[in-house]
This record gives sequence, C-alpha cells and structure tokens, in this order.
Amino acid sequence: MQVCSFIINSSGHETFGLVCEQGVIDAGKLLDYRDLKDLLENDGLAALQPLSTRPADYAFHEISFLPVIKTPNKILCVGMNYSEKRIEFGETNPAPTLFIRFADSLTAHLQPIQKPVSSEQFDYEGELAVVIGKPAHQVTEDEALHYVAGYSCFMDATVRDMQFTWFTAGKNWPATGGFGPWMTTHDEIPDPQQLELKTFLNGVQVQKDSTQNMIHSVAAIIAYVTHFTPLSPGDVIITGSPGGVGKSRTPQLFMFPGDDVAVEISQIGRLSHIIR
Amino acid sequence: MQVCSFIINSSGHETFGLVCEQGVIDAGKLLDYRDLKDLLENDGLAALQPLSTRPADYAFHEISFLPVIKTPNKILCVGMNYSEKRIEFGETNPAPTLFIRFADSLTAHLQPIQKPVSSEQFDYEGELAVVIGKPAHQVTEDEALHYVAGYSCFMDATVRDMQFTWFTAGKNWPATGGFGPWMTTHDEIPDPQQLELKTFLNGVQVQKDSTQNMIHSVAAIIAYVTHFTPLSPGDVIITGSPGGVGKSRTPQLFMFPGDDVAVEISQIGRLSHIIR
Repeated sequence: MQVCSFIINSSGHETFGLVCEQGVIDAGKLLDYRDLKDLLENDGLAALQPLSTRPADYAFHEISFLPVIKTPNKILCVGMNYSEKRIEFGETNPAPTLFIRFADSLTAHLQPIQKPVSSEQFDYEGELAVVIGKPAHQVTEDEALHYVAGYSCFMDATVRDMQFTWFTAGKNWPATGGFGPWMTTHDEIPDPQQLELKTFLNGVQVQKDSTQNMIHSVAAIIAYVTHFTPLSPGDVIITGSPGGVGKSRTPQLFMFPGDDVAVEISQIGRLSHIIR
Repeated sequence: MQVCSFIINSSGHETFGLVCEQGVIDAGKLLDYRDLKDLLENDGLAALQPLSTRPADYAFHEISFLPVIKTPNKILCVGMNYSEKRIEFGETNPAPTLFIRFADSLTAHLQPIQKPVSSEQFDYEGELAVVIGKPAHQVTEDEALHYVAGYSCFMDATVRDMQFTWFTAGKNWPATGGFGPWMTTHDEIPDPQQLELKTFLNGVQVQKDSTQNMIHSVAAIIAYVTHFTPLSPGDVIITGSPGGVGKSRTPQLFMFPGDDVAVEISQIGRLSHIIR
C-alpha cells in the first residue's frame, strides 16, 4: 500500500488515505483516526488494507499532499551514511552521525522548498525515510524491521553556509525537509537495503546509489537509536544521502529559486519540489 | 516570581504555581490554563503576580516537582559556550555549537537522574536554562531578551561514551536532563550575564563560573537560533556548561549510582538530583 496524508482542496479538510492509479482513497472519512500518526499509534495499518479495492475519492489535482506524517514527535537524521559521501567530506569516525530536525522544517510533495534568502550554498540531499510503526525501545538489530510502518522519500535540503560545527542550524530552516509523496508499507519492502535512490536537479541526475551501500543499515540504525531514546509510532528516521551533493562537486552546484529538485526511490516513488 | 510545575502528592494531580517560603501556591486551581506552557502561550505570566501574596497551598513535602516545562516543543542546547570549557575540549570553531534534546530526556528537581547501565563516563554539566515566553522568529540581539519568560537551572548530564561525532546520542537518554526547581521570571533578572553558576558533586564544588564568561550571550543565542527556526512559548535554550567537567579532569571524575549532583545559580536556586 501507498499511504499518504493530504488536504482536500475544495474544503481545506486534512485527512489521510491510500494512493491508487486514479488518485487517492479517503480513509480518514471511513476510519475513526485523527490522522496517520493516530492510526499508527492505534495499530490501524491493517484496517487500511480492505479499503484498497475502492475507487478513488479524489483525483490528484483535487488534493494537496501533506508531509507523510505532519508532526512526528522525533525526526532523527543520520549523516555520512554512504561510503562515497564519507570520502567526499573526509569523515573517518565510524559512529553514526546523528542530528535532529524539528517537525516545522518539513514540507510536502509538490510544495515549495524554501531557500533562506541569506544562503548561497543551499544543497540537495536525497534520502530514504523510515516511518516507525510501533513503540520501540532498545530493540535488537534482528527484530528492528518489525517496528517499521513503511518507507518514503526525503529531500534533506541543507543550508551549508549555516552548517558550521554541527548540522542543527543548517537543517532546521522552515520548509527545507521534503517528505513524501507517500509511504510504501513495510510488507512491500521486505529488504530496505535493496532500493535504488536517485536525485535530479532540473531533470539532470545528480545522485545515484543503492541503499545496499549504506554504512549503517536501516535495522542497525533503529537498534542504535532505540538504545538511547524510545521511538513512537510516526517517528521518522532519515538514513543519509549518497555522494554527489553540490558542495563536493567542482564546480559546486547549489539550488536557487525556480530550480526543480526530485528524489526517486524504487518501490516508493518520486518526490518533487520547486525551490522558492 | 519563582514559577514551577508540580504534582500534588495526595491526588497525583499535575498543576503549576508560585514558590514561596512556606511551599507552593497552586495557581492551576485559580487560573484557566492547562499547564505552564499553556499559560505562557496565552501571555498569562502577568496573571500570576496578584497570586503571590496568598499563603502556600502545599508544603514542599506535599508536592513533587515536575520539569519547569514538562514538554517543551523545542529544546536547543549550546555546547562549548564558556572559554574554559573550549580550552579543555580543544574547540576552535567560533560558531555556536547546537544540539537538540527531546522532551522525554527531562527530569525534575529531586527526581533521580538515570545513568545508563552501559555508561562508564556519565558526566555532569551545570547550565543556565532560558525559557521562551513569546513567539520569536528572526529577532535581533537587541530585542531578544524581551522574548524570555524566565531562567532556570539545568543539569545537562552527558553520556560521554555515547557522544561520538555529535552529541545527539550522548544527550538524549531518558531522565538525563534535570530542569528546575523553578523558573525565576525575567523581571527579576534584567541581565542574565551577571549570574554565578556552581555545580556540586557529593557536596564538593566541581564547576564555578559567571555567565559573563559565556562566548555567546543569551541575547546572541536567541538571535542566532531564531534566525533559522521559530521559537514558541515554553521552548527552552540550554546555554552551555563552564569548564571543570569530569571528562577533562586528571583523574577523570564521573557520576555513579548514589552520587548527589546539584546546580546552583544566583537569583534562581539549587537543582538537586541523586544518580540512579
């Protein structure tokens, strides 16, 4: 299933549902959950399955996507998790590099990503996002994937000229974290280390790698993170970006208003944004 | 005023109020706010003033303190913000070093701080906490202090053996961030750079400095942080720890179960914890 959060354009009502070929099925009007996070908190993913054969309630042009989870309690991001990226940035410490995004830095599929006016080094980072489906505290690597609800695309746009010593300041500007368009449920992706990830800037492919080249696998990251902090349904882990980001190129390649950036991950889909 | 959040032991009811010599005044039963964050969001600090002449509703032994704000939306922490600490850790980058704590890492005055079983390097860091009182986005350094509700003590206990490249993993274990006992309102502390901060481990003074030795002042930090992320009432900024932490001593000095750690800041008070 492809599960999404969205706004019905005609009414402005926020709801959630399933993506099908003709558009989206409004599960929010049929099921008694406030939103997708509430559904995950109440173990409601199975309740969506029977709805998947229904016709679309809305065509895509009748809705606006929201971030898959609009307000996760915790968004943890792994830096330097692909070998090529580590070489480009000279990172030698093998420990997972973790930073945090606040929920108000998120933006949705087809909504603009906002370049800070003051930034001249606004960089793209295409990433795989993991949505947690069950309370997870100190889980082992072997059992970690049982706690995943699904996977999504993430555009972890980075203000390199505010990154300084750590990433907090470079990663938390409003509307710099694209999250969507939807979440492919875990049953369709038994092995998250076999996905192909590509990033495109103005239609030109600028990043391409396989998730099998992650230094720390999705399962290892979940085990590591839940070792020190409990995760809840709707929490999100961003798993890092491959090599090829704009800062490490010669000449460097950054994003400016009007640019079109997209992340495409096999078995998930394509997340697109215009830079504003 | 000294403003606090607390539990009434006899009923388990959570409320907030004012600290006086005999105990606490229960403002929650008199004012129509859910909690202290809700009061700040609705600009209710002035409504507390008339209550300050009332007698105490509860003696201190009849209540249990909560973290001053139980669930801040954002907790931003500044690292390496005193010259002595920077020398001890060899930090040369002048940009504010920022990391984030999740709200579930907080604990209250007189509640235990939990040392992770796996840690052999559990360190103390006494710090000044700033509680935001009004929505603040891109405010200048000159006007920054107008957005402060008050000041509190913070014990930023640190799992050094999980700190690795960045601090996320070393700073987010449950019940490692002591926050209290209360907040002294901004009107009583017109200049937050004139406070004396001391940390005690088992009664022995282990840190002592003045907030005038901060590299980045409270006002500068607020201006810097709100440049990239909006702050809301109840958000918290932890302003960094002076030199003298356990890791930089010879021999090193860490905390173990049964130890008694306290942070004392002039014009605020003394925050105490037993390590468990």
